[in-house]
Amino acid sequence: MFNELILKRESCRNYNGEPVNTDLLIKCVDAARLSPSACNSQPWKYYIINGGENAEKIRDCIQPNGANKFVQNCPAFAIVTEQPATLKPAIAERIKDKQRWAQNDVGLSVAHYCLQAADLGLGTCIIGMVEEEKVREYFGIEDKIRLVIATGYSADEKPRNKVRKALEDVCVVIE
Amino acid sequence: MFNELILKRESCRNYNGEPVNTDLLIKCVDAARLSPSACNSQPWKYYIINGGENAEKIRDCIQPNGANKFVQNCPAFAIVTEQPATLKPAIAERIKDKQRWAQNDVGLSVAHYCLQAADLGLGTCIIGMVEEEKVREYFGIEDKIRLVIATGYSADEKPRNKVRKALEDVCVVIE
Repeated sequence: MFNELILKRESCRNYNGEPVNTDLLIKCVDAARLSPSACNSQPWKYYIINGGENAEKIRDCIQPNGANKFVQNCPAFAIVTEQPATLKPAIAERIKDKQRWAQNDVGLSVAHYCLQAADLGLGTCIIGMVEEEKVREYFGIEDKIRLVIATGYSADEKPRNKVRKALEDVCVVIE
Repeated sequence: MFNELILKRESCRNYNGEPVNTDLLIKCVDAARLSPSACNSQPWKYYIINGGENAEKIRDCIQPNGANKFVQNCPAFAIVTEQPATLKPAIAERIKDKQRWAQNDVGLSVAHYCLQAADLGLGTCIIGMVEEEKVREYFGIEDKIRLVIATGYSADEKPRNKVRKALEDVCVVIE
């Protein structure tokens, strides 16, 4: 059931360091690939890094001022980029900002990635504080960098209870 | 398995008109509520409309120039709004644009909504072309309106095959 998977997925900041098979990471991107987007524009591209020197480099891009120390023990990462959106002509002529829905679409695909990872037994943490210039230097990526998703096996035995706003604060039924 | 749910979820533009129990719509918002967000800021609020005169009104807001005619047969809708983001102090002081990740976060929560709907047997279609001013007038909503999610039972017997970019076009493994 999906509601069980939702509770299993959490932002993991405690990895056990165990290596991840690259095929599993590709499965997560494949799930992201199948997510919906405005005009089916699919304005995303994922770069996978799994261990070794490249993992050291991407860790250096997501620990500004000593933040996110937990990534030291995370073996794998997905760099999530936003691509130029190609809207349908009838819609494009009404919308000045062609990227209007792109960030939302990227969010949709990232949710698919993280939920697929949880279903495969992998922990994830979406990291927004990314030093874009460093990523460009290290990996020669020219695309607009949105996020990095740390991906690995959790060292925790079970998920934490979720701390969220009350349902009535985020859900209004208009009668 | 999550990959089966992904294939079940599709943008439904053919509803059978059957009414939807409001409890199911609230379950979808509850799934959206549990999604991750930058600094756990949860910058979203959902307004549920289920049938009657209000459904007529929201349909009037999402059919500019005769687009989206399929919503006539869809009974229920969620208006998705973006809320002011409250980032952690250490991050807020480094980030000028407090809403930097909010649209991404809204996308994450919308994915949860749509996948939960699919798991409950409901079809959804995310609609970006929303006449915001009309929504304000009809419902007195002051928040930033991002999307409307049409929600109802599909008239199609099975999901379409998904048309997407090839995996190698959206997934690069950096060796």
